[in-house]
Amino acid sequence: VRASPIKAVVVTNGDVDHVAGLLNLREAQPFTVYGARRVLDVLAANRIFDVLAKASVERSELPLGAPLALSGAGVDLGLTVEAFPVAGKIALWLEDAMAANYGSAEGDTLGLQIIETASGKSFFYVPGCAGMDSELEERLRGAELVFFDGTLWHEYEMIDQGLLGKTGSRMGHINMSGEDGSIKAFSALGVTRKIYVHINNSNPVLDEGSKERAEAKAAGWEIGEDGMEVAL
Amino acid sequence: VRASPIKAVVVTNGDVDHVAGLLNLREAQPFTVYGARRVLDVLAANRIFDVLAKASVERSELPLGAPLALSGAGVDLGLTVEAFPVAGKIALWLEDAMAANYGSAEGDTLGLQIIETASGKSFFYVPGCAGMDSELEERLRGAELVFFDGTLWHEYEMIDQGLLGKTGSRMGHINMSGEDGSIKAFSALGVTRKIYVHINNSNPVLDEGSKERAEAKAAGWEIGEDGMEVAL
Repeated sequence: VRASPIKAVVVTNGDVDHVAGLLNLREAQPFTVYGARRVLDVLAANRIFDVLAKASVERSELPLGAPLALSGAGVDLGLTVEAFPVAGKIALWLEDAMAANYGSAEGDTLGLQIIETASGKSFFYVPGCAGMDSELEERLRGAELVFFDGTLWHEYEMIDQGLLGKTGSRMGHINMSGEDGSIKAFSALGVTRKIYVHINNSNPVLDEGSKERAEAKAAGWEIGEDGMEVAL
Repeated sequence: VRASPIKAVVVTNGDVDHVAGLLNLREAQPFTVYGARRVLDVLAANRIFDVLAKASVERSELPLGAPLALSGAGVDLGLTVEAFPVAGKIALWLEDAMAANYGSAEGDTLGLQIIETASGKSFFYVPGCAGMDSELEERLRGAELVFFDGTLWHEYEMIDQGLLGKTGSRMGHINMSGEDGSIKAFSALGVTRKIYVHINNSNPVLDEGSKERAEAKAAGWEIGEDGMEVAL
C-alpha cells in the first residue's frame, strides 16, 4: 500500500529548504537521515520532526572529512559519502541576532563527495557555500563533476529586486558573478563538468535569454533544472 | 518577481498535514494565519515557523462559535468564517503519552462554516473529526454543502493493512463505515451535498471499483479529488 524508494537522506544544512522535505516522508517507512551533529541536534530538538518515528527512521552522524558507506533500511546502498564543512551559516530560522556570526559553527553547511563504492567514480554536491577557500579549492581541483551553489548572481540581487534587505554574503551564499564569485573561483580549478543547483528564483541565469546565462555558459557552467539526469 | 494569491490561511489542526504547508509560503509576502489559540501557540513555540517573518505574516486568533470576516494583506477577503470545536485530538507530534487523552483540549480540531459575506451563501469544511455529537449534528442539519473527514473507511483499517498499530478512534478520526461512522451519522441530517476530503491512502473508497466506493456513493457521498471545483 505504501512504499518509498528512499532509503537514506543526507542533509547538508538545517535551513527549511533542506529539512522540510523530511516531513513528507512520515509514513513509518524505514530510512536513515545522515547529517552533521549540529543539524541532527536541530532535528532532535524540534518536535515537529518527531513525525519521523524513531523506531523506523534512524539518525546517523556524518563524520567530517572521512568517507562513510551509506546504508538504509538495513541495506548497504552502494554509495559512499565524504562530507566536509564549507563556509556557510546556521539556518535562518535558528539565527541568534545577538551572537557573532549569528551563531554559526562548523558543520552548519556541508559539501559532499558522493562515491559509487564499486567503481570509485564520484562527484561533488555543494548546494550551499558562502565562499571559496583554499581547502575547498584543493578538494574540487580536477574533479569530473561538481554541483554547486547557484543561489544568487549578484551580491545585491535581493535588495535590488525589492525581495529582501540582505546581501548574498549575509544570506550565507557565494554569488556567481564578481571578483569573489564562483565563476571566477572555478576558472582555474580544471573541473570537467560544472552544474549550478539551488538557484534562487531571483537569479537572472534562470532566464535562457539573459546575458548572465550567456556569461555563465561561456565560463563552462550548466544551469541545473528539474528532472535533469546526469550520467557519471 | 514573487507573488502569491494566498492572502489568508485558516488552520484547523496542528498536525503536520495541516501546518507543514505554511513552510512553503516563506517568501516575505504578507498574509494572515488564522487558527485557534491552541494551534497558534504551537506555531509560535516552534522555531521552524519563524520562517514566516512576523513583520509580514500576521497571526490572528479565531473565535470559537462566532463569525469573523477574514482579511489578509490589509484587504477584506469577502469571506466570513465561523469556527467551532469538534471532537478531535492534539497533533500526533505533540502528543504527551503520559497525559489523559494525550493532552488534547478544545480547539485542537476545528470545523469551519465558510460564508460568502455578500450573499450569505455558505458551506462547511470539517477535514478532521473524531465523532459526531448532537452539537455538530445541529450545525450541519440541512446544510447545502459539507466537506467532511474521510480519513478511514474502517476502525481497524491501518492495523489490517499493516501500516500502523492504531485504530481510527486512536488517530482522532471518525470512520466512514459502522454504527458510529459518518455515513450512518449523516443519513438523517438532510445535507444536500456531502463530499469526503482528507482521505487516507489506505481508504478503499479511493478505488473507483470498490464495494466501499459503491456503498458511499449509494449513501449520497462524493469522493473529493485533486483539482475538484465546486460551485455554491
